[in-house]
Amino acid sequence: MKILIVLAHPEPKSFNAALYQSAIKTFIENGHEVRTTDLYTMKFNPVYDRSNFKSVKNPNFLKLQVEEIYAAEMNNSYTDETRIEQEKVEWCDLMIWQFPLWRFAPPAILKGWTDRIFTSGRFFKGGGYYENGTLKGKKALISVTTGSPEETYASDGFHGDILGILRPINRGILECVGFSVLEPEINYSVAHLTEDERKSLIGRWNSRLKNIFNEPIISAGKY
Amino acid sequence: MKILIVLAHPEPKSFNAALYQSAIKTFIENGHEVRTTDLYTMKFNPVYDRSNFKSVKNPNFLKLQVEEIYAAEMNNSYTDETRIEQEKVEWCDLMIWQFPLWRFAPPAILKGWTDRIFTSGRFFKGGGYYENGTLKGKKALISVTTGSPEETYASDGFHGDILGILRPINRGILECVGFSVLEPEINYSVAHLTEDERKSLIGRWNSRLKNIFNEPIISAGKY
Repeated sequence: MKILIVLAHPEPKSFNAALYQSAIKTFIENGHEVRTTDLYTMKFNPVYDRSNFKSVKNPNFLKLQVEEIYAAEMNNSYTDETRIEQEKVEWCDLMIWQFPLWRFAPPAILKGWTDRIFTSGRFFKGGGYYENGTLKGKKALISVTTGSPEETYASDGFHGDILGILRPINRGILECVGFSVLEPEINYSVAHLTEDERKSLIGRWNSRLKNIFNEPIISAGKY
Repeated sequence: MKILIVLAHPEPKSFNAALYQSAIKTFIENGHEVRTTDLYTMKFNPVYDRSNFKSVKNPNFLKLQVEEIYAAEMNNSYTDETRIEQEKVEWCDLMIWQFPLWRFAPPAILKGWTDRIFTSGRFFKGGGYYENGTLKGKKALISVTTGSPEETYASDGFHGDILGILRPINRGILECVGFSVLEPEINYSVAHLTEDERKSLIGRWNSRLKNIFNEPIISAGKY
């Protein structure tokens, strides 16, 4: 199968980077094709503006959706940085995002990747949302680390149910464009892991990935 | 009163920019003090990494929370861009964010502002979350525009209840650091407004702002 793995973490020695690297290794060892997007290493620019396009529909008033649809019509005249990422997303059978949860959401560098990549005209078109989304048939999985411990993300914890916190990502980004989502991989309070705990959690992750294409999809749930 | 207004939109002639400019004018005309953060005009860098700090606690392994707490101890040795924004947040009685909802969340440039500004050590300290948050006593209001029409954000619409979609912002960012939140201002499907509709909605916004300090706070709700 074809797998795209996206990493959003600034420290190459981080637990996030270790999960990312081990996932690449596991998939390759199991005969899959892997492409990657390491956003910090690429110095990906997450600020969405006119620089996302080679074409210009209206030079006097920037309406992003208008420019997105025009770029799609103009032989996908998105900037190269964007077009390459769009092609990776369209290529893969499974997309995995590896990131730390910052303020209940992905780091800005990953948020901006979604702002720039999932454009109207190329992805959202002809009423293509959710079960009619243009990426229907593909799967996605978010692999998240947290700062706070697990009990704070229980439904009676002070942050509240982690699946509710992750819903805007699973539903508002991934399901919305057509992906079927898998159960999120969540590692809590990772700043305080011992070396042995790190190894054990990486092992658990790799075991999961070996059977990932047999896993049932979940529903992110409605609001 | 002291009001901070943050704008995240790349087009100076946009409806978002018009709401932002009219809010500034209304507050000043009503005798309030206003400070502003226009993220696109400032070319704010939303990518959170070592460049957020003048100090270095550990040059070999970047743990952001460790560097945040160290910077707070080192006489707030955050980079100037960050420190100035932190001081605005601490200064204000009311903070307003004006932004378009992209992928169920703020644009990356605003997400990154929150990643960089709301640091441990300066804001989250001594168990200071939610009702014990360090910004307790301040109010916050998100003013949001959408692409999709209002009916898609009803609880039986295909996107689902808009207040659920906004919860990670109101609860996970604003309430978490101590703000009391006001009812969000929501303008739907703004790309298709006529000039008269635009004026009418700006008028409604300004009328609301004249009495904003009498409004009851809401609860973003738990997950």
